[in-house]
Amino acid sequence: MSEPGVSSTTDIRVRYAETDAMKVVYHGNYLPYFEEARTALFRSIGLTYSEIEREGFYLVVLEVHAQYKRSAVYDDVLHVKASLRELPAMRITIHYEITRNNEPEVLVTGETVHAFVNAASGRPIRPPKEYLTVMQRYFPS
Amino acid sequence: MSEPGVSSTTDIRVRYAETDAMKVVYHGNYLPYFEEARTALFRSIGLTYSEIEREGFYLVVLEVHAQYKRSAVYDDVLHVKASLRELPAMRITIHYEITRNNEPEVLVTGETVHAFVNAASGRPIRPPKEYLTVMQRYFPS
Amino acid sequence: MSEPGVSSTTDIRVRYAETDAMKVVYHGNYLPYFEEARTALFRSIGLTYSEIEREGFYLVVLEVHAQYKRSAVYDDVLHVKASLRELPAMRITIHYEITRNNEPEVLVTGETVHAFVNAASGRPIRPPKEYLTVMQRYFPS
Amino acid sequence: MSEPGVSSTTDIRVRYAETDAMKVVYHGNYLPYFEEARTALFRSIGLTYSEIEREGFYLVVLEVHAQYKRSAVYDDVLHVKASLRELPAMRITIHYEITRNNEPEVLVTGETVHAFVNAASGRPIRPPKEYLTVMQRYFPS
Repeated sequence: MSEPGVSSTTDIRVRYAETDAMKVVYHGNYLPYFEEARTALFRSIGLTYSEIEREGFYLVVLEVHAQYKRSAVYDDVLHVKASLRELPAMRITIHYEITRNNEPEVLVTGETVHAFVNAASGRPIRPPKEYLTVMQRYFPS
Repeated sequence: MSEPGVSSTTDIRVRYAETDAMKVVYHGNYLPYFEEARTALFRSIGLTYSEIEREGFYLVVLEVHAQYKRSAVYDDVLHVKASLRELPAMRITIHYEITRNNEPEVLVTGETVHAFVNAASGRPIRPPKEYLTVMQRYFPS
Repeated sequence: MSEPGVSSTTDIRVRYAETDAMKVVYHGNYLPYFEEARTALFRSIGLTYSEIEREGFYLVVLEVHAQYKRSAVYDDVLHVKASLRELPAMRITIHYEITRNNEPEVLVTGETVHAFVNAASGRPIRPPKEYLTVMQRYFPS
Repeated sequence: MSEPGVSSTTDIRVRYAETDAMKVVYHGNYLPYFEEARTALFRSIGLTYSEIEREGFYLVVLEVHAQYKRSAVYDDVLHVKASLRELPAMRITIHYEITRNNEPEVLVTGETVHAFVNAASGRPIRPPKEYLTVMQRYFPS
């Protein structure tokens, strides 16, 4: 039986700009990779983040955690898997796992914790009902 | 006799994040250095860019030019000189010159061309009168 | 008759990380877009930049020029066209043109000027013969 | 009685390049701020990171954790405090706390976990003895 939730994998090719003098991807540059994979995950279930903003909400980042196990280098094609494993409540946690072309070893894992806020007031709010409805489809009750 | 205009030098220490796999500063990362020096130049003559935005204007970038002559590396303290050499009209050009601690050789030179726009409409406008007044002080007529 | 030379277009989706407080792509972040398109151009003619480095050469950036005409925003899919219009000599110039999904207007244009250097000595060298041979195919003599 | 350990505070002015379309500092851009503060912490006790690399060691990042409580905006001067609270063993943990000019509220907290590796082999090693000696000064036994 598969786990509840939903996930999506995005391929990202490492830019020279993203490497550092150790000749590997700078640790901070995995956060934009997480972001790109998270956006793709939302898009894959019909939620477009730019649309969310146009409706007056921001999905802000409350917390980030990343564990670096192996290095990626320039021109690597990385597979960045983003997963939503629990039905979102006030806080939404996304999990990440990065591997490289045809290799089983995980390079980087991570989690980000988010909340919806009202873009005008900056106040945290529950996920807007329409987003919750979409997300609930992926969690058997 | 000194040249007309005004200049300001900002010290910037190179972060590891700003280097690349050639073990030097990534060429694109000099643009934020130019930006930091430009902001300091404006601040030095009493113009605070964040204040400009609060008044409803953006100073947008129309053009960037950079010439890379020598490399900078991690932990270098760079001196980034920004100069305004001509009285701003519709277009404002800033010149840059980057040197390193106690060395005469120029590492990078550059120019950026800007225009004021109305933040609401996005339309280009002449430099607001109060900014022009401040800037005119540095250009003998 | 088509122009001599070779070009390649890369699609790049704008990350949130690449925007700034004007709600558009930060001007400096087009340089990594140029880089990604340049790498794809070289790959399209059988030259892999990571391979070039493994053989002991760097292709360094001597000069960058960018003209910003219109803004791109978060989640835009940009088409970044990189072109090699002249047979490379000591200096190699690449031209760029960025458009957006299904729109004719050009957002950003640019040029970068490069030279091969010996990675060990840092000295500029002519393009290694094998690269010149590949590139010559695209220029009728 | 003061806590054992050592800390150092670095002032960093937020660049426009570091903001995003929410008009605040992009969450990923705090990692270079942590890095700058960590480097300054080491420098303050006589350990220069660029020197460490010249001796053949890398201090790699194994883990990053950041908690975002309040936003910083363009031109803010941030105080980034980095602290070493435990005597380094195989793993070295640095703690961070970011505040803003004259305000008591903490904006961002974080931790990074590091290990020394042999730059040539990539293998984790104990902190070189001379570094350990320096660091021990700050921890009463």
